[in-house]
Amino acid sequence: MTFEQWMRSVLDRVEGALEQYLPAESTEPATLHQAMRYAVLGGGKRVRPLLCHAAGELTGAKAECLDAASAALEMIHVYSLVHDDMPCMDDDELRRGKPTVHVKYDEPTALLVGDALQSQAFVALTSDVLAPAQQAALVRELALASGSIGMAGGQAIDLASVGHTLTRAQLETMHRLKTGALLRAAVRMGALTGETPDAKTLQALDAYSAAVGLAFQVVDDILDVTTDSATLGKTAGKDAKDGKPTYVSIIGLDASRALAAQLRSDAHDALASFGARAQRLAELADLVVNRVS
Amino acid sequence: MTFEQWMRSVLDRVEGALEQYLPAESTEPATLHQAMRYAVLGGGKRVRPLLCHAAGELTGAKAECLDAASAALEMIHVYSLVHDDMPCMDDDELRRGKPTVHVKYDEPTALLVGDALQSQAFVALTSDVLAPAQQAALVRELALASGSIGMAGGQAIDLASVGHTLTRAQLETMHRLKTGALLRAAVRMGALTGETPDAKTLQALDAYSAAVGLAFQVVDDILDVTTDSATLGKTAGKDAKDGKPTYVSIIGLDASRALAAQLRSDAHDALASFGARAQRLAELADLVVNRVS
Repeated sequence: MTFEQWMRSVLDRVEGALEQYLPAESTEPATLHQAMRYAVLGGGKRVRPLLCHAAGELTGAKAECLDAASAALEMIHVYSLVHDDMPCMDDDELRRGKPTVHVKYDEPTALLVGDALQSQAFVALTSDVLAPAQQAALVRELALASGSIGMAGGQAIDLASVGHTLTRAQLETMHRLKTGALLRAAVRMGALTGETPDAKTLQALDAYSAAVGLAFQVVDDILDVTTDSATLGKTAGKDAKDGKPTYVSIIGLDASRALAAQLRSDAHDALASFGARAQRLAELADLVVNRVS
Repeated sequence: MTFEQWMRSVLDRVEGALEQYLPAESTEPATLHQAMRYAVLGGGKRVRPLLCHAAGELTGAKAECLDAASAALEMIHVYSLVHDDMPCMDDDELRRGKPTVHVKYDEPTALLVGDALQSQAFVALTSDVLAPAQQAALVRELALASGSIGMAGGQAIDLASVGHTLTRAQLETMHRLKTGALLRAAVRMGALTGETPDAKTLQALDAYSAAVGLAFQVVDDILDVTTDSATLGKTAGKDAKDGKPTYVSIIGLDASRALAAQLRSDAHDALASFGARAQRLAELADLVVNRVS
């Protein structure tokens, strides 16, 4: 199977899983459920589900178990986008090429969509396709990665940084929490969904995730200044306009590109001991760095 | 032990558990953690933790396990208050006698405090004082009760109802989700924390919770028109001002008082088969109906 075929098959599975783990549009309250599905379905790069499925190949995880974990990861990611786009946060009107939830519906609905998607992620993780002990382990990974010492904490640091000059180390701390924690959780959860991985495996996967997570952000910052809104599916040039520190603003465009290439190489190095079982993880590191949107 | 002594001892335990299960103020990002603790600690009636501990007595649950479940329940409850108080929702400035989180801090912080408290609830439920299978069962109860077919769904119905005339049945559906689902989860989670309860026990407890949950709301509506803001610790008369349908507006004050008394009696009836083991649950039903704030 080529990487493209593998990716297509995972993306199809994940779309089906999201469809399955989200309440139906006809379930009351119908508008809330329609808005949740509007936010989640039919868009997005599904980077976290892809990482989760790729890591699951290392530990022989069953695809249907990885689907549950992937659906939960994507729901958390989308809830964070819906809340981040709200007027009191980034005030953004375009996401994944469509009007953001508070524009399409209204602010209270956007708030509740985010809140309910977070709950629904934990509903998905307690699906009975997973053994109870696995459910518990995955819930803990996801809750820690989402909360105040993970994604939400990174968001708080990001907000506090607007208009301030950050050092490169401070910028890295912010991204390690804001996007890195959930990407790391995606990889760990994929591995934990199969045969329990040993400490050395988890350590190598964490090193891989740290490199890929940072690369993802560096590339985001590069694309924000080199690509148009239509290609990105979100408002381009927004970070500079909002006075947000980025890799490009701190170290420049050329150094950012060199850093992304270095991080891809670090990600590959972290996988060295796994051999062919880590092929998809290695290919995903390439995808993260080479993407154009 | 008198009811007052029992209640005091549970409240002390719960305050300690919340203290323990919330990240320290000094942990980065410090402002977010300070705001989370501001929202949660030192206030509130702790009705859900009390129900959880009382139900745990039926199944011989360990106090430290009930503490973890109670902390999670209260974090979910507080997150919903913080989000409900935001300008795009109820726009309220007073809660538990203190400025609301978006007034004391700012709107983005209030949004993130709510988001992070929801995650932290699931962190608390995966504490290793609970066995993995119990963790998984409790997570599922709490996630379903919090999400779009529970609390968040009730909130969506509530928002959609402003300015509309609801039937008593529609009002009941709204409250069954908005407040009832989490109160029911508090009772079920307490019971599930001990020896696994049989279906008949859970059925009786659900009947108890349905009565207490509705009584809680009816009394809330009564207090909203009969009590001042200082006693309530939140803005009195707000529902009428916002054009929200309430029991008092639909069936009147006297009929609302009679309904509350009837629901207390229903709650007691539901507990009949448990005997003395259900003493605290019965006393809590009385407290919910007789409270003055």
